[in-house]
Amino acid sequence: MSLRHLAASSRSQVAPFAVMDILARVDELRAAGRDVVSLCAGEPSGGAPSGVSAKAAAIHASERPLTYTPALGTAELRSAIAGHYRRWYGLEIDPARIAVTTGSSGAFVLGFLAAFEAGDRVALARPGYPAYRNILAALGCEVVEIDCGPETRYQPTPELLDSAAREHGQLAGLILASPANPTGTMVSRSELEAIASWCSANGTRLVSDEIYHGITYPDAVLDRHSPRGVCAWELASDLSRDTIVISSFSKYWGMTGWRLGWMLLPEELVGTVDALAGNIALCPPAPSQLAAVEAFSPASYAEADAWVAQYAETRRALLGRLDALGWGPAAPADGAFYLYAELGSHLERFEDSRAYCRELLESEGVAIVPGTDFDAASGGRSVRLSFAAGSTAVTTAVERILRFQERGA
Amino acid sequence: MSLRHLAASSRSQVAPFAVMDILARVDELRAAGRDVVSLCAGEPSGGAPSGVSAKAAAIHASERPLTYTPALGTAELRSAIAGHYRRWYGLEIDPARIAVTTGSSGAFVLGFLAAFEAGDRVALARPGYPAYRNILAALGCEVVEIDCGPETRYQPTPELLDSAAREHGQLAGLILASPANPTGTMVSRSELEAIASWCSANGTRLVSDEIYHGITYPDAVLDRHSPRGVCAWELASDLSRDTIVISSFSKYWGMTGWRLGWMLLPEELVGTVDALAGNIALCPPAPSQLAAVEAFSPASYAEADAWVAQYAETRRALLGRLDALGWGPAAPADGAFYLYAELGSHLERFEDSRAYCRELLESEGVAIVPGTDFDAASGGRSVRLSFAAGSTAVTTAVERILRFQERGA
Repeated sequence: MSLRHLAASSRSQVAPFAVMDILARVDELRAAGRDVVSLCAGEPSGGAPSGVSAKAAAIHASERPLTYTPALGTAELRSAIAGHYRRWYGLEIDPARIAVTTGSSGAFVLGFLAAFEAGDRVALARPGYPAYRNILAALGCEVVEIDCGPETRYQPTPELLDSAAREHGQLAGLILASPANPTGTMVSRSELEAIASWCSANGTRLVSDEIYHGITYPDAVLDRHSPRGVCAWELASDLSRDTIVISSFSKYWGMTGWRLGWMLLPEELVGTVDALAGNIALCPPAPSQLAAVEAFSPASYAEADAWVAQYAETRRALLGRLDALGWGPAAPADGAFYLYAELGSHLERFEDSRAYCRELLESEGVAIVPGTDFDAASGGRSVRLSFAAGSTAVTTAVERILRFQERGA
Repeated sequence: MSLRHLAASSRSQVAPFAVMDILARVDELRAAGRDVVSLCAGEPSGGAPSGVSAKAAAIHASERPLTYTPALGTAELRSAIAGHYRRWYGLEIDPARIAVTTGSSGAFVLGFLAAFEAGDRVALARPGYPAYRNILAALGCEVVEIDCGPETRYQPTPELLDSAAREHGQLAGLILASPANPTGTMVSRSELEAIASWCSANGTRLVSDEIYHGITYPDAVLDRHSPRGVCAWELASDLSRDTIVISSFSKYWGMTGWRLGWMLLPEELVGTVDALAGNIALCPPAPSQLAAVEAFSPASYAEADAWVAQYAETRRALLGRLDALGWGPAAPADGAFYLYAELGSHLERFEDSRAYCRELLESEGVAIVPGTDFDAASGGRSVRLSFAAGSTAVTTAVERILRFQERGA
């Protein structure tokens, strides 16, 4: 028995993502002088609103000491986030129920620990954001993946939840994302209500991931009264505020690297998350918090909306070429900046979408993500394109993909 | 069975800290116009080196988009940290073995998850930093507290580890802190070697918390060749690099709010931590990473050392009054900026150190932390004073404590 025999824990083992190999290869190709268009990134490229950057610059220029803030964030920022819910959703939220976190990642870790025991079953849609299942697994939860296809717009329904509970047993939690990654699909208010009611009737804690709210498109808005997406706390029922809502400055405001997000917390979790956060994170980054209050100025909203308008234009152009690409079915790209589609007959000469993506990168210099990273069961037929890279990149990529597919045909 | 009955998970329950009540009462008293001296803070008040702040200001002024960095940090910062080990310890460390983290807190969560299974027994010294045990407990590890008193300078020894293993069974891990919080005590190179050898012989993963390195005092240096503290990777044995070393920009460089730390990782954990970090944190804060490379400039080291010189002066003044205070025994304040002492006969008229601290705050306006926050077994006899607040605050506090104790006598 010696230290030499110690190994990494089994609970910390995470399946490698295909996208990591692709990104490494993109770097190699670019270093070798190849012109590569990457539609892999799940993040905006434009950066923070200029008011936020200016505030951050001023804070640092003042050499004000940046010490620990309260574990759940500064009072000023929590109050500003409450103002955001008033503005976008007409909701009054007590700032005491808002926990500022180190990105939405920090919110997932704290929220999952506070709400779920080791051994608890937690359900989520497949395809879905792989970090949900990897965080849950590392924390000892049993992940129940619910196959969601085009029939339900890639979102769970009460019927699918019934069937999952029959097969696996009681579900302690459900993670719902609208708009979702990788599909971009959203749930309508009535669909969200049906899911929340099912959760309430079945003792299941709903966790609503709303980090892509605000990145939505006029022609795809499901609810006229909630053009930014429906917040789970908007639901008529008192029960809605037993849901954990998770959001972030990363996507709509383009602040991924700043590592700042937040949670709306059920009352009975506030004290627990406060104490837990004080131990496992101490506090979210102080400079990000101090600057982020500027994200809620009219000028910052206008800048963020201008980015969304650019995504809308890119999305329109991309959807206009879907027929030409001959893929299908494609998930309705309601929100976020992703197109998730099956490759259809174009997959025939490849082992799976990983092979398609590898060959596309080598021969045409276009990088996209195979669906296997989001769906271990049937993602081998699908790919995800991010259109956050902008119109020029997407138009060039589509031309190259068409050439790639024609050459193979 | 309904959502109304859902509660917080049992694993997320953290015992409340007495210091939280004290800090809340400090705020109340100050709001009411009382002059309160607080020696509670476990953080420097001076802020980051000016070169770091200037770099951060320039980054934000340029409005450069701050997107995700690699999960283990930017190549530039990892390489700069390797340079720091060359400078302070004469160590050559492959930057690939350095993981930048969201504060040392982020390193503890990632390191514990990667190294320990749920159910594993992990030992640590009592008194000790309470977040260790709270993080370990939240992650399902069994915490084995080792009573460490003045006989062993409040640090574990092979004998104490033998006895803990006999009583509890095999130890999967040991957390060692030098300088330690709350005691400030350090281990010498030979003591560290003995502990590391014990760990190696017993299949125990050593986690060496070195976040207070650099905050050390000439008259207390245990090893002439390691005036900043002995890094566990300095040990002669090859086995030393199976230890997880954890450090931070928070203390020596005064950057607590920036949330930036790092780990030195055993080779077999690098891939695991990389994948895990990409899922549970995505990356450490990008602006903090970009600015922190300036922490390693000669000017920044000089600024940080000037703060340490101020702590040294405050510490000398405080230790000079120990006899007058009539406390004892006090832990030797080898490093960090804490004095941890038993109250001795001054405790007689109080139920415990919590009561002493409450009464001291109410009657004299001096805030210090009761030992119960660091030691549930015998911390009722002790208090922790932080001298990071500076000479004036400490001198005033000591005068008031003397008056408080004389009045009671």
